Amino acid sequence: MTSLADLPLREDLRGDKPYGAPQLDVPVQLNTNENPYGPSPELVRALGEAVAAAAGELNRYPDRDAMALRADLAAYLNAESGTDLDASRVWAANGSNEIILQILQAFGGPGRTALGFEPSYSMHPTITKVANTGWINAFRAEDFGLEADRAIEAITEHRPDVVFLTSPNNPTGTALDHGAIKAVLDVAPGMVVVDEAYGEFRRAGTPSALELLPGNPRLIVTRTMSKAFALAGARLGYLAADPAVLEALLLVRMPYHLSTVTQAVARTALAFSGELLGYVEELRRERDATVAWLRAEGFRVADSDANFVLFGEFADRDAVWRRMLDHGVLIRVVGPPTWMRVTVGTPQEMAAFRNALKESV
Amino acid sequence: MTSLADLPLREDLRGDKPYGAPQLDVPVQLNTNENPYGPSPELVRALGEAVAAAAGELNRYPDRDAMALRADLAAYLNAESGTDLDASRVWAANGSNEIILQILQAFGGPGRTALGFEPSYSMHPTITKVANTGWINAFRAEDFGLEADRAIEAITEHRPDVVFLTSPNNPTGTALDHGAIKAVLDVAPGMVVVDEAYGEFRRAGTPSALELLPGNPRLIVTRTMSKAFALAGARLGYLAADPAVLEALLLVRMPYHLSTVTQAVARTALAFSGELLGYVEELRRERDATVAWLRAEGFRVADSDANFVLFGEFADRDAVWRRMLDHGVLIRVVGPPTWMRVTVGTPQEMAAFRNALKESV
Repeated sequence: MTSLADLPLREDLRGDKPYGAPQLDVPVQLNTNENPYGPSPELVRALGEAVAAAAGELNRYPDRDAMALRADLAAYLNAESGTDLDASRVWAANGSNEIILQILQAFGGPGRTALGFEPSYSMHPTITKVANTGWINAFRAEDFGLEADRAIEAITEHRPDVVFLTSPNNPTGTALDHGAIKAVLDVAPGMVVVDEAYGEFRRAGTPSALELLPGNPRLIVTRTMSKAFALAGARLGYLAADPAVLEALLLVRMPYHLSTVTQAVARTALAFSGELLGYVEELRRERDATVAWLRAEGFRVADSDANFVLFGEFADRDAVWRRMLDHGVLIRVVGPPTWMRVTVGTPQEMAAFRNALKESV
Repeated sequence: MTSLADLPLREDLRGDKPYGAPQLDVPVQLNTNENPYGPSPELVRALGEAVAAAAGELNRYPDRDAMALRADLAAYLNAESGTDLDASRVWAANGSNEIILQILQAFGGPGRTALGFEPSYSMHPTITKVANTGWINAFRAEDFGLEADRAIEAITEHRPDVVFLTSPNNPTGTALDHGAIKAVLDVAPGMVVVDEAYGEFRRAGTPSALELLPGNPRLIVTRTMSKAFALAGARLGYLAADPAVLEALLLVRMPYHLSTVTQAVARTALAFSGELLGYVEELRRERDATVAWLRAEGFRVADSDANFVLFGEFADRDAVWRRMLDHGVLIRVVGPPTWMRVTVGTPQEMAAFRNALKESV
């Protein structure tokens, strides 16, 4: 039998392990920051109808540039963040992962580097490597915050071609203020990506980096429909940036990367944004209650602007994780070695989480 | 206003133009090798129902490894080509383009090269560049065939890490016999990809490279549902290879690259393969009739095992293309400078093609 070692794999991939968040069949799944609220029967019906309406033309290639979807996404962002975007400034792909890959394919590459402030989204360095770009770890403060001074120092030292910021940050939940982002834009020699995958969950008063787009053509803000829109299964990530950035992405994207069906599904979900975003408020409340409960129980808890909470500290987090799984609750071993992350689910799911945690520590 | 020149684009992309097959609203579209036969009302209904059935769980991530779809694709290939494949040997992605990208991400990269025999599919060198891999042009014989001797010579000289073969070849329609593929496997130091995007249209007696998979762990055969399955809009490409190859792809694929909806749509179409492949026979007949008619009209015509025909020669093909477009028929300026390619459409579309061509030369 042939093994991977027998094949001419890229040398720097040898020994790597595939991305592997467990996909287990467990009653309470609080491990991948999914939204617990599935689409309503009305939206399910509308999705089926939208796909059936598009299906008669499935023998034809999709609109290669997904113009109608991009216009809808721009309108949504304008409503959500008070921006003034149009389709020329919004780009879409199969999930944020593909968005990030395309950014690195255009602005990274051999001899170039990308820098992120860890702990952060584990796919940033992974996708950077896939795109043959060097990765530089910079670090957050003890409280997981990112001060302008610290960011300036790291960027001035390493002069990365791409900087990844995250607001709120996964897995810590920490949001960025405009000061830190502006400081990075001032000193970064290349592109600055603010990953706002969890942007809609930010607390009142927390700004979006979208507001900084005018006058900053090297700023890219990424978003996703996987979280607030409860559409992880549909794979729709997007970004807002200067039109010149989109010109660059056209050089590296796979032609027809976004299917007719994906475009129809995403547009239908956007038309139901009232329903889908209605749950965001509920998840925010549940998040804040979870933070408060964990603190009351004596845990250390990171402030969260996202739909998850990082908490600790555990001498043996793997053992606690396993015991919670035995109680039917799947959370995530991620982040600093003594911490774990729980996704905010329904009130019932969070009650199960609280019980399982108390039984497991 | 910012222009692309102001941004820190990867140096080797500067001056590149995006992939740009025209997407024009023309009565007779014979330019991108789409299948002219859209899905039946029964299939349209089934697709809508399948998506509605999956939509209730769209808040959850898709099956990251698409196991059920891969099993269905394996069963289809076994029925079509007499192979004995299972899900461990079949991998799927968002179109053949993403399949090819993943292959290059795993087995190409900086300092490595890929080689193809031109004229061939223009995306092979483009995707190779996106994956930071060097591209080597080798050339076909005058009749667009690829003799074993010629292939051996090119590979021995350049020692590429990835060889792209195509059967049938786009844009020439030329299929490969097993002799040439075996010769390449014997001398190639790295991976050998046989792109069979148009495999189902091959003439009786033309073999599939799938038959060569046993005992050849460096052979990858790629397929797509865009052509014979008339599903270009759904973006589903796939490959068959040794399980160790799939292990390599797991290291570079974006997690959750294939949406729940795409998986449901593709599985539904596979369940209707009888309907969809019924048109393949009709397109083959129309293709052979088109070749015969063009030859009777005095054109040079490449033998075709695909759903398109390359013909020439034109002193000014752009002018002929433009005049045909004025007659409402869109074909493709591609391949050697004095040739053009027409996709095989319905009998009515091919009648319009014949009339437009006669009026335009």
